[in-house]
Amino acid sequence: MDKAYSKKLLTPKSQDFSKWYLDVVLNAKLADYGPVRGTMVLRPYGYSLWEKVQDYFNSVIKKDEVKNAYFPSLIPISLLRKEKKHIEGFSPELAVITIGGGEKLEEEIVVRPTSETIIYLMLSKWISSWRDLPVKLNQWCNVVRWEKRTLPFLRTTEFLWQEGHTIHETSEEAKEMALRALTWYKDLYKSLYSLPVLIGVKSESEKFAGASVTYTVESLLPDGKALQSATSHILEQNFAKNFGVSYQDKEGVLKYPYPTSWGLSTRSLGSVVMIHGDDNGLILPPKLAPIKLVIIPVLGKDDEKVFTFSKKIKELLEKYDSAFAGSVELWDQDNGSFGWKVNESELMGIPLRITVGPKEVAGESPLTITCRVKDVESEEVSQKTLKEIGEKVEKMLEKEHAFLYEKAEKHLEENIRTAKNYEEFKNIMNKNKGFIKAFWCENPQCEAKIKEETKATTRLLPLGAKEESGHCIYCNSKAKHLWYFAQSS
Amino acid sequence: MDKAYSKKLLTPKSQDFSKWYLDVVLNAKLADYGPVRGTMVLRPYGYSLWEKVQDYFNSVIKKDEVKNAYFPSLIPISLLRKEKKHIEGFSPELAVITIGGGEKLEEEIVVRPTSETIIYLMLSKWISSWRDLPVKLNQWCNVVRWEKRTLPFLRTTEFLWQEGHTIHETSEEAKEMALRALTWYKDLYKSLYSLPVLIGVKSESEKFAGASVTYTVESLLPDGKALQSATSHILEQNFAKNFGVSYQDKEGVLKYPYPTSWGLSTRSLGSVVMIHGDDNGLILPPKLAPIKLVIIPVLGKDDEKVFTFSKKIKELLEKYDSAFAGSVELWDQDNGSFGWKVNESELMGIPLRITVGPKEVAGESPLTITCRVKDVESEEVSQKTLKEIGEKVEKMLEKEHAFLYEKAEKHLEENIRTAKNYEEFKNIMNKNKGFIKAFWCENPQCEAKIKEETKATTRLLPLGAKEESGHCIYCNSKAKHLWYFAQSS
Repeated sequence: MDKAYSKKLLTPKSQDFSKWYLDVVLNAKLADYGPVRGTMVLRPYGYSLWEKVQDYFNSVIKKDEVKNAYFPSLIPISLLRKEKKHIEGFSPELAVITIGGGEKLEEEIVVRPTSETIIYLMLSKWISSWRDLPVKLNQWCNVVRWEKRTLPFLRTTEFLWQEGHTIHETSEEAKEMALRALTWYKDLYKSLYSLPVLIGVKSESEKFAGASVTYTVESLLPDGKALQSATSHILEQNFAKNFGVSYQDKEGVLKYPYPTSWGLSTRSLGSVVMIHGDDNGLILPPKLAPIKLVIIPVLGKDDEKVFTFSKKIKELLEKYDSAFAGSVELWDQDNGSFGWKVNESELMGIPLRITVGPKEVAGESPLTITCRVKDVESEEVSQKTLKEIGEKVEKMLEKEHAFLYEKAEKHLEENIRTAKNYEEFKNIMNKNKGFIKAFWCENPQCEAKIKEETKATTRLLPLGAKEESGHCIYCNSKAKHLWYFAQSS
Repeated sequence: MDKAYSKKLLTPKSQDFSKWYLDVVLNAKLADYGPVRGTMVLRPYGYSLWEKVQDYFNSVIKKDEVKNAYFPSLIPISLLRKEKKHIEGFSPELAVITIGGGEKLEEEIVVRPTSETIIYLMLSKWISSWRDLPVKLNQWCNVVRWEKRTLPFLRTTEFLWQEGHTIHETSEEAKEMALRALTWYKDLYKSLYSLPVLIGVKSESEKFAGASVTYTVESLLPDGKALQSATSHILEQNFAKNFGVSYQDKEGVLKYPYPTSWGLSTRSLGSVVMIHGDDNGLILPPKLAPIKLVIIPVLGKDDEKVFTFSKKIKELLEKYDSAFAGSVELWDQDNGSFGWKVNESELMGIPLRITVGPKEVAGESPLTITCRVKDVESEEVSQKTLKEIGEKVEKMLEKEHAFLYEKAEKHLEENIRTAKNYEEFKNIMNKNKGFIKAFWCENPQCEAKIKEETKATTRLLPLGAKEESGHCIYCNSKAKHLWYFAQSS
């Protein structure tokens, strides 16, 4: 810890959201800027959040028999060119290696922006029979995309992600897989991030380069903009054809299988910071927080007794639940004042805090567990037994988890509005932002015009949306569905 | 699994070691070749070994308060140039990005060959006081080095590794850290890989580019060549100076701290394959093996009973030890003959195998646990109780672990020879290879001549080697130490 960081360094969230966000990311030591424009260093505290995501998601996918693997980050440009739509979509974002081992390369090599092409190349060698299907792979890795506007976590030139890649005999199976991944993401946002999301289908123009269907997870940020927070694609069968991935079915007929891909990146952590945080800094949802509780002793007289008592509490909690071992910290170092430590614990978004002074030791004051979120009431521990303190800590973590989710859900729900006509649409987008439900004829020209005039893009059509009878908000021709629009973050 | 792979595809190890190695790596589906020369795909089975390494090593370093982080893979070339020896060492191996986002870059960017430079750049921003020290970081990532001769696992253009980076107030602390890391590697080789290694100090010419001391872990391969299997460096304080990493000590005096770095890569898995494997394929040491035991039912009459019985054994083992959940497999799929499955389990190096047929079900034959390593005796299970079967499996895994270590240790010990003169040295290097202990005057010219004439390089001087009085094997001038020489793999 470093004394130089103090509360006053943070711009209030309500005053300047963008500045507040950068203040929190930098001062809570989640991340820092790398030397190449748009790159980001994930500092240990920030990286520990990504490790939580890895642990959580690995246990989900391994239950479904998805296997982790690692494919080279170096892809010959000719491989990307095998899929026309794919290279068209990605070519403006590529980082190209032209020199290797001191010599100009015969063929340019691209640092992976995503791994479909190299994975299909390998699958074409590994798959020959229906017995080899399905193949379900996942990889945790870095990818490079040359972004124009960058922002820590949200859009960085290099980022970390997981990319799942599967390939199936039937299109139904592929669809099931893509939808299952979508559900995994929604569950992850709810269980680990305490965040509600919207899920649905992307429009033709907003699809992934080379996908036949893109499913999306969308979050609402505090500034009323939408963030694409994870995606899952059914890829065009073309991909299999272009890369020569084929198999013999049970009757010996040569067929092309159906691929899916799906990804969640470090971007998602940006939405956690943005949505939950407050003027005092980060607020980490309890399931994601690497430190769940911090014990801060009040130093002065009776230091020895205060230390002993503080240690005992830490030990009680670790005994109560092995999950607390490593996630309960005692800040007894002489590296800052009591007040500074309290501020630091708030800045870092540690869910719970117990302060211990001579009065707590002497039993003159009850031991108080304070939640990082002011709306979650403090709890007093009278008995200081293993059971009492353990149960209260557990209860408060659950309460905070629920509170954060409900607060974000309320904000999301309050910011989904229906526009009956284009005037209303423009007014809402001007004044409130958020999501707007509106009929759209699904003609890309209307979509483009709406974007040009309001900055709003189609975000999704909810899964299983029923056909309705309406008129396009822009051109007034017949429209079957209420689409969700929002400005993109 | 794929029926196409069968025993006959493997070249015998004794017949052609290099070809056998590639056969095993490819057919056991550990890895495959990527499209860019020298790159490698880590297939799920191979990657699962690396996940074991990550789990093991993370728990070791986290106990020592080393924190994982992630630094960008994109490094401006000017940053590498800040350290003259470093750029000299690495420039022949660099992959250089010259185009980003469709435009020629103003400054060339290098894909990290290692991360010292970018980490010190960041530390110069993060460190200001003695209170900030030590910093102990680790990162799991890919690195790219343009290798001329490549071989799966051993030397690949891109590889995965962990790179630890620490920085300390005193050179003593830095030395302690570098030695601690060395011990971690030696322990990992022994505990996880069942492999003995030699540890010691590298000569001046064999040091890491920019290190003041390089400690090394050396393995002996079956072909008598040595493999540098992990390294740990104390870096020149110059590194701190050149990157502006400084701190104020307790008296307020500006000082430069002492850095260390240490790394273990996927190369290490290559030595596991090479040393333990046999004519039937891979032999995975039990602690590293993702599948520890496979149950193979004999199909025919009474299939239902055989299946039920096989499942019961799997459940018993999972009940006995939760560590067996996920590491005991039942191969009851109709995807190959009994014989093919047995061969496949051998090819994959699964430590233990139980075959179940009608006789075992009826109690006419005892249940036999067979070890992948022929020298470890089979065990018969008579009672088939939870306790009996669990204990026998455990015991056999321990026996195999010990057997593999001892076998490799014997091979290592038998192949460390002392050469009294240069003739003897040349004879040994010609006939036996292996390690040769010989007096060397520590003059790089003698070292270079020996390499030129015998292909042998200095591998290490053992830690704490006592001063002796001898004469250089090459020039006959005074020499204080017996160095270890070997040909490099």
